Amino acid sequence: MDEALSHRVGPDFSLADVDPTSTPGFEWDKEDWEREFHEHDDELDELQEMLFANGRSGVPGTGAVLLILQGMDTSGKGGVIRHVFRAFDPQALKIKAFGAPTAEERMHDFLWRVRPHEPAVGQIGVFDRSHYEDVLIQRVREMAPPEEIERRYDAIVDFEREMASRNVRIIKVMLHISKEFQKENLIERLENPDKHWKFEPGDLDERELWDEYQEAYEIAMKRTSTDFAPWYCIPGDRKKYARMAVKYLVLDALRSMNMTWPPADFNVELELERAKNS
Amino acid sequence: MDEALSHRVGPDFSLADVDPTSTPGFEWDKEDWEREFHEHDDELDELQEMLFANGRSGVPGTGAVLLILQGMDTSGKGGVIRHVFRAFDPQALKIKAFGAPTAEERMHDFLWRVRPHEPAVGQIGVFDRSHYEDVLIQRVREMAPPEEIERRYDAIVDFEREMASRNVRIIKVMLHISKEFQKENLIERLENPDKHWKFEPGDLDERELWDEYQEAYEIAMKRTSTDFAPWYCIPGDRKKYARMAVKYLVLDALRSMNMTWPPADFNVELELERAKNS
Repeated sequence: MDEALSHRVGPDFSLADVDPTSTPGFEWDKEDWEREFHEHDDELDELQEMLFANGRSGVPGTGAVLLILQGMDTSGKGGVIRHVFRAFDPQALKIKAFGAPTAEERMHDFLWRVRPHEPAVGQIGVFDRSHYEDVLIQRVREMAPPEEIERRYDAIVDFEREMASRNVRIIKVMLHISKEFQKENLIERLENPDKHWKFEPGDLDERELWDEYQEAYEIAMKRTSTDFAPWYCIPGDRKKYARMAVKYLVLDALRSMNMTWPPADFNVELELERAKNS
Repeated sequence: MDEALSHRVGPDFSLADVDPTSTPGFEWDKEDWEREFHEHDDELDELQEMLFANGRSGVPGTGAVLLILQGMDTSGKGGVIRHVFRAFDPQALKIKAFGAPTAEERMHDFLWRVRPHEPAVGQIGVFDRSHYEDVLIQRVREMAPPEEIERRYDAIVDFEREMASRNVRIIKVMLHISKEFQKENLIERLENPDKHWKFEPGDLDERELWDEYQEAYEIAMKRTSTDFAPWYCIPGDRKKYARMAVKYLVLDALRSMNMTWPPADFNVELELERAKNS
């Protein structure tokens, strides 16, 4: 399980080698899936409460988790957030969706609008799209000059290294779907009036640049996949599989923090005596 | 069900008349409870997605929901948030816990720190404590002069009326527990090292002012319970009961919004044709 459910991006990574319909690390079976998806819910619940408790109590060295989700339109980012994070206490979650930058945001460095949304200690942050759009759509659409795009890869690595140095566990996920699967999803949105709100004509314009986006993704992932903030490429055509893979990556990150419950900073016996007499 | 699960606060409300161990509107039974608690999860899911969709699509008149949770220490506010809102898509939730005001916040009007946390259109906001602390602890502890406390009741009504005029459905809940139940909860926190982080000695100091707090709650609720932002007093000694009551109040609020899915603002047939040929 865990990392076996995804492809960790290293120097030799090739996006074309990842089959979006595959389910690495898991033999597809509906019943097994249900069981496995919920198998560690109690542990997840305890780990995230412990993280929250450590943050709240100001335990030195307490960090956070930051999941960065990227993927083409209809790749299932929203579904991942909905299904994976329902197992979590919403009080400890900090979810931020990044859309097109505003006029004010465009006047600042691309990281300016991102920094305020870093998770606080004890939180689990989720970025639905992120600063990676600034080296994806901005590269494909030539919205920034090539040398600025180049600069951004390094700036991102620095930004993430700095967060990691404060014990923020960064998990970067690309939900990798096939072009055919996106077509099915777009048609479904258009055929179902309940889903029209999720569609906009620009989605089809972006789709025409599919190959350019795949290239931009591969370059971005290879340039910014580090030990402290690795990229994982998760096959996305089987949505439930992708949700499970993300859930296990978050579980791994929480386990790796080796937490304990915060110690009391008061005299327990004395307070217990007071409470009993109150 | 629904409102029958709680006591809506009117001019004749008396906190002492509400038995914290009671379960109005529901005959206590564990199996029934489980079924009933989850009975409307699919509807809730659809309603909140519809609200989110309307907000995202900029449908005129789209509002939001704001649940304001108050209660004495250990009254179960966190548990309500955890259990009720797990049925919701975390992307549409905006949860804010208000602690003691910072030095900067104390230099501003008491509503200054609250306004930025209003839910946006399409969101479901939850305040874990709120601007009501400024007429509760601040009254009991005499942290503000009486005339300022008086002014705040009216300022709160104005603030909430203004939000309601933008279709924010405001639900205000006091989780009403007994003094004995709080004692059990505090002792449990102290006897369980996993829960020490939830305790601080100041909790016992506040407990000594129990009667003063009850009085402050009753006055605050009577002064600020309006048609557009009613208070509900929910018996809290049976935690699961309280969670169900809150869940039904949120369901009622969402139902009352009479929403539909946002209409397409593009030519559906044309885009479907494009998608099929893409």
